[in-house]
Order: sequence, then structure tokens, then C-alpha cells
Amino acid sequence: MAAAGQPRRRRHDPDRRDRIVETCLEVIGAEGVAGTSTRRIAAAADVPLGSITYHFADVDALLHEAFERFATRVSDRFEAAMAGAATLDEARAAVVHLIGSDVLTDPRELVLTHELYTLAARDPRYRRLTHAWMARSRAALERHFDPPTARLLDALIEGLSIHRALDTEPHGIAEVERAVALVTRAP
Amino acid sequence: MAAAGQPRRRRHDPDRRDRIVETCLEVIGAEGVAGTSTRRIAAAADVPLGSITYHFADVDALLHEAFERFATRVSDRFEAAMAGAATLDEARAAVVHLIGSDVLTDPRELVLTHELYTLAARDPRYRRLTHAWMARSRAALERHFDPPTARLLDALIEGLSIHRALDTEPHGIAEVERAVALVTRAP
Repeated sequence: MAAAGQPRRRRHDPDRRDRIVETCLEVIGAEGVAGTSTRRIAAAADVPLGSITYHFADVDALLHEAFERFATRVSDRFEAAMAGAATLDEARAAVVHLIGSDVLTDPRELVLTHELYTLAARDPRYRRLTHAWMARSRAALERHFDPPTARLLDALIEGLSIHRALDTEPHGIAEVERAVALVTRAP
Repeated sequence: MAAAGQPRRRRHDPDRRDRIVETCLEVIGAEGVAGTSTRRIAAAADVPLGSITYHFADVDALLHEAFERFATRVSDRFEAAMAGAATLDEARAAVVHLIGSDVLTDPRELVLTHELYTLAARDPRYRRLTHAWMARSRAALERHFDPPTARLLDALIEGLSIHRALDTEPHGIAEVERAVALVTRAP
């Protein structure tokens, strides 16, 4: 709510399009795709509803761009973590850290990930996003591991992250370390 | 569409409640939770809209019961596959078959699974369903594997199934066999 006497809309607003995409991700993360509407995004981004229809052909075009941004962002983070590892042991530690960190179990990111997978299961346009995401993850892992190991490790990261997030029992980091060591044939 | 002259509604319909739940799963599988409404379920199940409000307190009660049925059904199938294995090698083969079969990559089941995970990420009532599902999967795996291996294998099944379903490259069964052997310390 704007303070009394202040103009509610920003007149000069060069980042409006960007903010709409970002707000779309926030609304999906909080409410799910089912609870997301242009009206809700407009209200949360503090832009007139017409500005969404001005920038995006339809709500699906906005959703697609938002999910593309989300996948790229998570993928960038993963790539940076793998690029930062200098040795095989550091790469293993980076993978353990990624699985064990709160990043992948953040409820908002979890909602976005599974909403994207749901869309990908039904729509090839979204499957292209998941495919590009997987290809980047594997390329990042292949800096340190052979291709079959990278694919296996990628699947393991997926499964362990989901189970850590959705389980009600705590998962110890030792279990993750053991899993990564086993799959990457560490001594 | 009913044939001309036929009564559109069934008068004696003892399975109506059950059919509403089943149809709810079909509609979610085809349209996602975002595209699911009591109106659409009523039309697809060929029941009056009022019959849904008669049997269910609200749409969320119907959704919850539908997802509970889905999780129980997938879980039953998994348990039966594990119970059917007589030796460690047969158990490994059953796991490979489950990951490699089309069952887990069926788009409808994939949509239902990720919709459930999305709900579980935001709502503890749905997290209880995913927790019960995981507990049953692990108990089934523990018929053949020690608890840490069962947890790891469960995560691997999750990750490999998702990646097989969402990838655009084909995944060979040999890769799955190798992964299961590695994680279960097969020679």
C-alpha cells in the first residue's frame, strides 16, 4: 500500500519488464502455478495489469520466460560451484555441499523446480528448458568426472535433494558424502 | 455426450464417490492442478456438480484424497515388485526394471508425481503423503538391502526416473544396471 499522498505508480520505470518476470517467480514460489494470475503478479510487482499484456503476448509467455530465468539461475550457480573446484576431491566436496545446503531445499525453489517438471511432463517447450538445464549440469560435472559418472551423479543430486527436502526425518551429511564417494568411485 | 433418448445421469450409482476421486486423478494428469476444477471433474466423471460438494467438504479435500490414492497405488506397485524378488540379484533386476519401465515415465504419472511434490513443498498435509510414500519404498527396499543402501537406492531411483522422463536423449538400460550395481555394491 502506497503512503497517503504519494503517487502509486512509478512514472519512470525502465526495469518494469524485468520486475514482472522476477515477481512472477516469487508468486509461483509462494502460491504455485495454480495460484498465479496476471492480476496477482501485477499487484505484487506494483504495475498496472495492462503493463503485463503490453510486455507479454499472454500469461504463458510470461510463465515460460520466468521458468527459463529460474532454470538459468540455478544452472549458473551449479556451474560456478563446479568451476570453483580445483581437484577431484574439491569437486566431490562441492557436490556434497550443494546437496547438503539449504539452497536446494528452499521451499520456494522446490515449488519452482517441481512446477517446471510438471509443465515439462506435458509440454515440449518446457521440456526444452529442463533439457538445457540437464545438459549444462552435466557439462559442469564433466569438468571433473567422466560422462557416465556425471550423468549418474546428476541423477543422484536430483534424487537426494528431493528426498532431503520432502522427507520429515533429518538426513545426515555423512550419508551424502558416502553416496557421492560411492558413485564417483572415491577410495 | 449421451446418446439421444438415453438418460444422461445414472440413477443407481454406488461407485460415484470412488469415480469422482479416480476422475480427479485423470483430470490432474491431463491438465495439471492449475487446470483442474470441480466443474471439469464433474463433467469428466459424468456426475452433477452438486454430487462433488455432497461427497467432499471442498476441492482441497478431494485433491488430498486423490493424491493419497495415487501415492498408495504407486507405492503398492513398488512393494509388490520388491516382494516378488527372491534373491539379491532379482531385487537389483526389479529395481532396474522399475527405473527402465515406461511406468515411471508415463506423462500422466509424472505430472501427478511432481504436482504432489509441489504441494508437499508448501503444505505439511501433503508432505505427510510423500513421507509415508518414502517410508514404504524404503521398507520395501530393506527386504533386500541394508537401510543406508535402501535410502541411497531410493534417491537414485527418484533421480534416474526423473532424468529419463525429462531428458530428450535416450537413456540406455546398461547405464541403469551399472548405477544400481554400483550403489548396491554388486561385484
